[in-house]
Amino acid sequence: MPTSFPAPDPTPMDSFQTLTRLAQHPFDLTAPGALTAQRVLDLQAQACGFQLLYGTQRVNQETLAALAGLAKETQAVERMAQLMAGARANRIEGWPSEDRQVLHHATRDLFSDMPEPPLLTRVRERLAPAEADAARAAREEAVKQMEHLRVFLDDVMMGRITNNRGETFTDLVNVGIGGSDLGPRAVYMAVGPHRLRGRQVHYVSNLDSDDMSRHLAGLNLSRTLVNVVSKSGTTLETLTNETLARRFFREAGLDPAQHFICVTGQGSPMDNPAAYRACFHMFDYIGGRYSVTSMVGGVSLGFAMGYAGFVEFLRGARAMDLASLEPDPLNNLPLLAALLGVWNRSFLGHETLAVLPYSQGLLRFVAHLQQLDMESNGKGVTRLGQEAPYPTGPVVWGEPGTNGQHAFYQLLHQSKTVVPCEFIAFRRCQWNADIEVEGTTSQQKVLANVLAHAMALALGQTHENPNKRFPGNRPSWLMVHDRLTPYSLGSLLAFYENKVAFQGLLWNINSFDQEGVQLGKVLAQRFLSHLQNPTGAQAKADPLGLAMLQAAGMLEDST
Amino acid sequence: MPTSFPAPDPTPMDSFQTLTRLAQHPFDLTAPGALTAQRVLDLQAQACGFQLLYGTQRVNQETLAALAGLAKETQAVERMAQLMAGARANRIEGWPSEDRQVLHHATRDLFSDMPEPPLLTRVRERLAPAEADAARAAREEAVKQMEHLRVFLDDVMMGRITNNRGETFTDLVNVGIGGSDLGPRAVYMAVGPHRLRGRQVHYVSNLDSDDMSRHLAGLNLSRTLVNVVSKSGTTLETLTNETLARRFFREAGLDPAQHFICVTGQGSPMDNPAAYRACFHMFDYIGGRYSVTSMVGGVSLGFAMGYAGFVEFLRGARAMDLASLEPDPLNNLPLLAALLGVWNRSFLGHETLAVLPYSQGLLRFVAHLQQLDMESNGKGVTRLGQEAPYPTGPVVWGEPGTNGQHAFYQLLHQSKTVVPCEFIAFRRCQWNADIEVEGTTSQQKVLANVLAHAMALALGQTHENPNKRFPGNRPSWLMVHDRLTPYSLGSLLAFYENKVAFQGLLWNINSFDQEGVQLGKVLAQRFLSHLQNPTGAQAKADPLGLAMLQAAGMLEDST
Repeated sequence: MPTSFPAPDPTPMDSFQTLTRLAQHPFDLTAPGALTAQRVLDLQAQACGFQLLYGTQRVNQETLAALAGLAKETQAVERMAQLMAGARANRIEGWPSEDRQVLHHATRDLFSDMPEPPLLTRVRERLAPAEADAARAAREEAVKQMEHLRVFLDDVMMGRITNNRGETFTDLVNVGIGGSDLGPRAVYMAVGPHRLRGRQVHYVSNLDSDDMSRHLAGLNLSRTLVNVVSKSGTTLETLTNETLARRFFREAGLDPAQHFICVTGQGSPMDNPAAYRACFHMFDYIGGRYSVTSMVGGVSLGFAMGYAGFVEFLRGARAMDLASLEPDPLNNLPLLAALLGVWNRSFLGHETLAVLPYSQGLLRFVAHLQQLDMESNGKGVTRLGQEAPYPTGPVVWGEPGTNGQHAFYQLLHQSKTVVPCEFIAFRRCQWNADIEVEGTTSQQKVLANVLAHAMALALGQTHENPNKRFPGNRPSWLMVHDRLTPYSLGSLLAFYENKVAFQGLLWNINSFDQEGVQLGKVLAQRFLSHLQNPTGAQAKADPLGLAMLQAAGMLEDST
Repeated sequence: MPTSFPAPDPTPMDSFQTLTRLAQHPFDLTAPGALTAQRVLDLQAQACGFQLLYGTQRVNQETLAALAGLAKETQAVERMAQLMAGARANRIEGWPSEDRQVLHHATRDLFSDMPEPPLLTRVRERLAPAEADAARAAREEAVKQMEHLRVFLDDVMMGRITNNRGETFTDLVNVGIGGSDLGPRAVYMAVGPHRLRGRQVHYVSNLDSDDMSRHLAGLNLSRTLVNVVSKSGTTLETLTNETLARRFFREAGLDPAQHFICVTGQGSPMDNPAAYRACFHMFDYIGGRYSVTSMVGGVSLGFAMGYAGFVEFLRGARAMDLASLEPDPLNNLPLLAALLGVWNRSFLGHETLAVLPYSQGLLRFVAHLQQLDMESNGKGVTRLGQEAPYPTGPVVWGEPGTNGQHAFYQLLHQSKTVVPCEFIAFRRCQWNADIEVEGTTSQQKVLANVLAHAMALALGQTHENPNKRFPGNRPSWLMVHDRLTPYSLGSLLAFYENKVAFQGLLWNINSFDQEGVQLGKVLAQRFLSHLQNPTGAQAKADPLGLAMLQAAGMLEDST
């Protein structure tokens, strides 16, 4: 009998009612004396070296008290601790659902010098023993996989694993899609200067064969490893791309078995040592979009920056996990950000969220956040199987600053659409090539720009010419850290993972399933059947499907 | 005395009123018998080899008649012709504004075998002579710049322009931001197999010095050209990055004057032959986000795919420009798409637009569209200087399919937020490396997937389990072409440029200025002054600014 994971409906709670009332007249940042120096200094919080400045949100002490109340009434921190300890949090009450544990946090619970807080211990003791045992086993499995990775990377480094000419491997092609691609890719791009000399990773995801072709065209395949990543071992895109990649290797006179490794579920169709030089494992209790810190990220990122670099990244993530158990909601960075996110989405009604990292290394970080946030919280049904009475997860989008300033900031500042913004910035650059022009460094200019836009969005500007008016009152926050490193990146990743999970807890939705991806898969299969047999009985019974194929010009050959 | 560019308020028009009424009960795609084979075959239009299938939009014949009526009543096609012919379309009536012509179409009006339609000739004859003359001069200037480019590229190819050891150039670093970066970069990534052998372009934009460092770290600078692109010749990011790049060259013992070329406004501070090996020109009448087909795109794209490849791209764009003058709104592809966009945004109230190209080559095409659309139509004021009474440009976002399916489609299908989708697909792959797995090719799988999701979004699915229900009625359209080539890519680029401009005409807003980017620039300058002199009088007079710098940890050294 598993522990029942609480699923409290927030709507009748006092704090929820208060917030509904406060949202009628949210704090006016443009009012004289509203956005003061004192407010900016007061409204901040910190964790793991990150400073979160939120004076430019549309909240005052009353709003913040109500938001903190919502966290308390929904028992957000306690439920996060239950989730980490091993409760079956991936479920919908009263309906068939995945009904699983959510144990990605275990993949970075590896550091004996980072003890867990008493809350977690207390919560664990109240869990059903089977769940607590399974969570402990997950942690042991994470340790085992890390050891497997350490040995493998060492063998690659020391020339014990080589190509058939005894040469070491310089490149790794990572074949995966969704969670097996976006997160590891984003992290890889963000750790540029921390990569081992001469090591490169290439991420291939798209079913479109051009993706693979483009990458393999420029590679020396004889010194390339291919890492195929699929939890189920049956992902259509990944299997197709693997087949294509193996063909490229055979055409180059190389034996794929010498070059291919994989990350897959234990016992999946891919879990086959005859076909792969090494098999790493992932597990059902780790969702794809939460799997960067598992072997899904570990193999390609460890190849790129070495085992030690990957451990440093995990250490940063673990630090943020522990910070996520801070009981005071306004001093718990991911929870505070989640509360502000719920305020902006459900109470103020803002449909989208722009994440704007002022760091070129984070070029593809938002593409990862899109999956993390939208696949987790783009849900219409609560944990109780009822239609959600409020809007949930926002549309997440964004590009790095300062680039975005020259692209879409026009809309942020002057259109009728209000887009809450999350700015991320670093005080120092990554590559040590900063340069002083006109008396300031590039990095000072970057910071000046991010602060300027936060201020402009909040305050706006009156002007005689209507085309030069800025309405203001556009909420944003800024997270600053000293520098983008594997450690701080790990913290940032876990910050967003835990923020998203907290929002799901506040909204009382299940952030860990993805039923919305099923229907398209079924219909795609039907279209493929029609293409293989356009005059068969199945096709004839589906005139709409046939018409769509015909209109798209896909049936020309057969008519 | 310039021709007055019409600025009709659409709200009192019959069609606008009808659409407002129809939007109360939009066509229900989920009703039995609503989405039929016949409807799919009927609701399509074509131009330049593209097929636009829009049976999955929430429109019926009555809606379409009213949308066509809106195009007629706002004289959308005539005004597009006036704009192309040279009317001063970049203006706000009664207020100081840029008050310029909008002549990016002239950059591809180069083909005597593609005659202009009578409408354009007729409209030109009614223009003020000075405007018509200026437009003609712009066309001649485009021809001249193309000739300059042809000679330059030939000199590079034939070894008449080389480094100081007489070696040819293999790489080009393009330094620009916003319109001088996003469009050319998107096109470069989309023409992979059409690149000249051994030629590579690297786009650097971000003020963050890591962007430049990351790119130059792996390059042989002695065989690298740097193309600096800034219309004003004063763009902060670009000048800073140029300074940084010149330092890298000097440190490598190379003379920057031998390696640097530029694209800038005639007479700008950068227009200096002593500092650049070649200077190409762009002009005030071409907006940055509409400048891909000018020298802004021409230099890097011509270097990448040769002069002939770039001409092919322009030819595709020109074909779509001519198709944009088709008088029947429902047979004018960009206008039809604009009408559907206005219907979804202003009448049905959908705040965002997802552009989902099922082609890996279009990986960064949406980043370009974000600037094109959001900087053009993210406006709050009409051409008459009044607050727009309806929402205008949507938030544009998206990633290539099938990747996106494994990321954010969950939200598209099941959340309460409705996101109109624009799918783009090709029947053949680019790299000729398609592969058959389980009886179908990758490309067939790609098309089956895009059709499946269009169908799933429209029809939805009922289910006993609330978590497996799909509400449906989520509008989308699909544009299909045989193949992504320089020509079809040119057409696609011009399709979106003209679609966005049509939407601006329908909304009666100015799509060609960007006042919303000014305030941030001013404030950034103020923050930079504070950083240089944190105890000076200016800083002391701005306690809020100082507090923000302090909270961000930027004043630590001075306190």
